Amino acid sequence: MPNEPRKLSAQIRDVEFGENVTYVEPVNMYGCKLGDDCFVGPFVEIQSSVTVGKGTRIQSHTFVCEYVDIGEKCFIAHGVMFINDLFQIGGPAYGKKELWKSTKIGNNVSIGSNATILPVNICDDVVIGAGAVVTKDIDKPGIYAGNPAKLMREIPS
Amino acid sequence: MPNEPRKLSAQIRDVEFGENVTYVEPVNMYGCKLGDDCFVGPFVEIQSSVTVGKGTRIQSHTFVCEYVDIGEKCFIAHGVMFINDLFQIGGPAYGKKELWKSTKIGNNVSIGSNATILPVNICDDVVIGAGAVVTKDIDKPGIYAGNPAKLMREIPS
Amino acid sequence: MPNEPRKLSAQIRDVEFGENVTYVEPVNMYGCKLGDDCFVGPFVEIQSSVTVGKGTRIQSHTFVCEYVDIGEKCFIAHGVMFINDLFQIGGPAYGKKELWKSTKIGNNVSIGSNATILPVNICDDVVIGAGAVVTKDIDKPGIYAGNPAKLMREIPS
Repeated sequence: MPNEPRKLSAQIRDVEFGENVTYVEPVNMYGCKLGDDCFVGPFVEIQSSVTVGKGTRIQSHTFVCEYVDIGEKCFIAHGVMFINDLFQIGGPAYGKKELWKSTKIGNNVSIGSNATILPVNICDDVVIGAGAVVTKDIDKPGIYAGNPAKLMREIPS
Repeated sequence: MPNEPRKLSAQIRDVEFGENVTYVEPVNMYGCKLGDDCFVGPFVEIQSSVTVGKGTRIQSHTFVCEYVDIGEKCFIAHGVMFINDLFQIGGPAYGKKELWKSTKIGNNVSIGSNATILPVNICDDVVIGAGAVVTKDIDKPGIYAGNPAKLMREIPS
Repeated sequence: MPNEPRKLSAQIRDVEFGENVTYVEPVNMYGCKLGDDCFVGPFVEIQSSVTVGKGTRIQSHTFVCEYVDIGEKCFIAHGVMFINDLFQIGGPAYGKKELWKSTKIGNNVSIGSNATILPVNICDDVVIGAGAVVTKDIDKPGIYAGNPAKLMREIPS
């Protein structure tokens, strides 16, 4: 007799919505908090404890893991992957959450499509180019791109 | 009383299909035009005004934004992201479509998986390697790869 | 009269499941074999003939193509794309499967999110960084990252 797998389904579970939030199914969101006027595109997963500030858009195909906080008026484009586990023990930390790292994205941050965001802090008013891999904290407003991402141009304040 | 989000669903809306088109749900396609014999894999989004030429395949997990035209007999692999907004004003252009840029892909162009395509023109008979980030126009047939993508090898005509 | 496209749906078809496998719909899996205790996240496609060893996790948004074998206790993160066609004839091989190349991933291999894996052999006990593009065989345990991926640090055995 063949084995019967356990089938779960993408769903909306225990999500705290601000006012005027829109999302496009199928999405998988659980235990997270979305501020007023947020938008979440299709084929997105947002995990537990994530917070997303007012007016931020999370576009299609993006994955936001636990331990990520995103500020207000951010634009997270398509296919962006956030990361909380650096495989520091030569592989996944699995349940050892003391090994997970957090990510904090400021306000008015725009992250281009297919970018990869390791656990970092990014200050306000930053643009991350499409396809970039961000491996270090960013504390100066500007445009960053490449793998690993480097400052391309400052944005005068 | 908790806020009630607005729930939309991935759908097929106002799509003009050529003959013998196949797609695999779930996909989100609206306002676009697919030529004869096209294929669209699952977890794909194709936005308004996009045109896809005869015999072109758009594989799973790919995102094709507004202002992209793709030629005939192209192969757009998995997880490819097209872009129309370069964040030139330090963030998204949102509704200011005069800031959006267009992309034109010729015929017989193959784009590898996880590639990122900024708004560019790519001529006929080009191969883009997997994971490449294409930031400039390509006007010579050949194989291009890397971030940013560079010519690896010409294809003799 | 408008053309009527052929509509298929992501599905589970002819999959051989080990004991205690969990998956999260929507996924598209067909003709593949998943060992005991595997996990498959949402928005994943796994194609024909793929084998996945015991205890391996395939996270959301990942695409595993034909001709890929993955060992035991691996962690394939989010948005990882495997490849079997190098476009060696200047474009896709389509049905000419003699041109497709195979990929073999050992045991205890961790592949970071948004990584791209060309057809290669990767030995046991390897970590691939997020956003890496793996273009060559890896036969020494260690941490590899970048585009193209290079050895960052050996893992002493």
